[in-house]
Amino acid sequence: MSPTGIRTRARQGFPRLTGRVFRARMLKVQSAFREHGIEALLVTRPSSLRYLSGFTGSNGLLVLRSRSVVLVTDGRYQVQAREESMRAVRVVIVRGSLIEGAVRTGFLRKLSTIGFDDSAVTLRMYRDMKRVLSSASLKPVAGFIEDFAEVKEALELAALKMAARISDSVIAQLLPLVRPGVQECDLASEITYRQRRLGAERDSFEPIVASGPRTAMPHARAGSRTLREGDAVLFDLGCVVSGYGSDITRTVFLGKPDPRLRKVYGIVRSAQDAALQAVHAGVSARAVDAAAREVIARAGYARNFPHSLGHGIGLEVHERPRLAPSSKDTLRAGHAITIEPGIYLPGAGGVRIEDDVYVHDRGCDLLTHSPRELIQL
Amino acid sequence: MSPTGIRTRARQGFPRLTGRVFRARMLKVQSAFREHGIEALLVTRPSSLRYLSGFTGSNGLLVLRSRSVVLVTDGRYQVQAREESMRAVRVVIVRGSLIEGAVRTGFLRKLSTIGFDDSAVTLRMYRDMKRVLSSASLKPVAGFIEDFAEVKEALELAALKMAARISDSVIAQLLPLVRPGVQECDLASEITYRQRRLGAERDSFEPIVASGPRTAMPHARAGSRTLREGDAVLFDLGCVVSGYGSDITRTVFLGKPDPRLRKVYGIVRSAQDAALQAVHAGVSARAVDAAAREVIARAGYARNFPHSLGHGIGLEVHERPRLAPSSKDTLRAGHAITIEPGIYLPGAGGVRIEDDVYVHDRGCDLLTHSPRELIQL
Repeated sequence: MSPTGIRTRARQGFPRLTGRVFRARMLKVQSAFREHGIEALLVTRPSSLRYLSGFTGSNGLLVLRSRSVVLVTDGRYQVQAREESMRAVRVVIVRGSLIEGAVRTGFLRKLSTIGFDDSAVTLRMYRDMKRVLSSASLKPVAGFIEDFAEVKEALELAALKMAARISDSVIAQLLPLVRPGVQECDLASEITYRQRRLGAERDSFEPIVASGPRTAMPHARAGSRTLREGDAVLFDLGCVVSGYGSDITRTVFLGKPDPRLRKVYGIVRSAQDAALQAVHAGVSARAVDAAAREVIARAGYARNFPHSLGHGIGLEVHERPRLAPSSKDTLRAGHAITIEPGIYLPGAGGVRIEDDVYVHDRGCDLLTHSPRELIQL
Repeated sequence: MSPTGIRTRARQGFPRLTGRVFRARMLKVQSAFREHGIEALLVTRPSSLRYLSGFTGSNGLLVLRSRSVVLVTDGRYQVQAREESMRAVRVVIVRGSLIEGAVRTGFLRKLSTIGFDDSAVTLRMYRDMKRVLSSASLKPVAGFIEDFAEVKEALELAALKMAARISDSVIAQLLPLVRPGVQECDLASEITYRQRRLGAERDSFEPIVASGPRTAMPHARAGSRTLREGDAVLFDLGCVVSGYGSDITRTVFLGKPDPRLRKVYGIVRSAQDAALQAVHAGVSARAVDAAAREVIARAGYARNFPHSLGHGIGLEVHERPRLAPSSKDTLRAGHAITIEPGIYLPGAGGVRIEDDVYVHDRGCDLLTHSPRELIQL
């Protein structure tokens, strides 16, 4: 049925998170209530909701008490909420405000301290919460669930590996398509399409394809620029498997590279190597960022590396830890992170190389395996 | 280069928003400062940022004073921010917190009342703002910019029409692919791919493809279910042109429909007709919702229409006005809205028909033109 005549690869072998996984997570979170001084927790961040219950809808509020849990959502998700969330979750369908609906169930009665994530609640929502929960005290506990979610379990690692493998395959499929006369947006369409055909749920973010001088924009959108001989071509792409996303960047050259970019490529690669060497459980995220940043600074390009070195990946494409000069995070065994140094020369172009790694006690394992050598097509 | 051998359609004919458009918008917003009792406005919602300045980056803060404007963003967007935003905008690149960066420029000094959108600021951001702007009073003015943005200008309407036309074409291309043995996710891949190949920037949302009993979930994700003879198949899709998104749903049948769903199809279509008849500038959004809801209720399916009738479309896929029983909005000439009644029978399946319309004084014009008759494939 497809233009290529190939059916989407079956997802049967893909990791499937079971009720047991969710039950274990829920228990861990509930048993930390006392430590945080709360009796219940309001979960509003979509990735936290998915992490704890499996629910993927766009509108949901999870109310956790120490021994029970309610998912409040609207009528559109009646069937889906029941289907996706584990059995112990009571699903309540409401019209209008979710927090008002939750209060109407009586489930929040007699609670004196309720935790919530102040970085996932707008000021307007907060005022609604204050109004309808006037007798309880609301306690900000941002990062509470992320603290568990940032350390990846075996099934999560399996999903991340599968997502990385699909992105690797698509990069390999893409190289023969990088030719003069092709537009950036042609390549972006192929990325999205081919990741899905290999079984991904979706892109983990809108793929970036930049060519020529546009590679100097770290986050360029794929435009209608046509590739020419001599161009640098930068792809930044990722896909989602069972909720978990990959994130990989390669910069290749169509014909002979500009000598400045050839030089820069070598520096970026050395910077990435230095960072990969520095990764292990217990090191500060800042030190890993510094390992790469120093290589770039010594070569005289400090001002041309204007972003952080990397970030956690998982249910969100950017999650904790943050690898940046100002980061206060420490790497832990089980973190899945990106390592993505780049150098951008306005007017000329840029180079970024990004891989995903899994942190363990003695170092890290690469999840992405596309070649990192300079490729001249 | 593509599997189909077709190059992405050139975007040359697509509407391009010019500096003049942004200047006019900015002036309108600035001239409403006095009425709202503010001297400056902090813009944090990405769609509002794009509406006022053209900037599409993921991290930006626009600070408007009555005669000047600053865009604060991070180093990743140095080139892009300059390229996308109109000349009058001063671009400031900062590391770390955008609001702290804005304060460092001195641009916010000597202001006593600063407006902000409390539905686009998290509680955590708000506390940061309070801390660094301690001498100013912060005034919530949610909906201030939406009030301008919800009425579409000629260029915006042209973009919405183009997006609708692409989605219509993809629905026509899709019908021959709806065959037994095809998976839902195969069809979803084709939707995304074909919309892009016709020149769309991207999907306006993850396409929904549901088949058989799964059509009873209004917001089902495309899964690996394989289509069978007798299935209802529901597509809900949309794409973005120059920032503006379409949103259309069709439900078709693979072979002879279940008699219950055939009956339901007729009711949903009548409900949509009743709503389309009711649309004109000046009518309450609630009355339009009621026109459709009454048809469904009279047929005995009130409980099986668990969502609102529609919503505004534009730079966001769900924006004002809201067409729902509890809505307080009034339709205005220049609104672009969806009309999307549905009936869902758990276990059996569901039907939804959705079109985009443009509101004017005497009624509305359809933007989407796919056939609405029951299609049996």
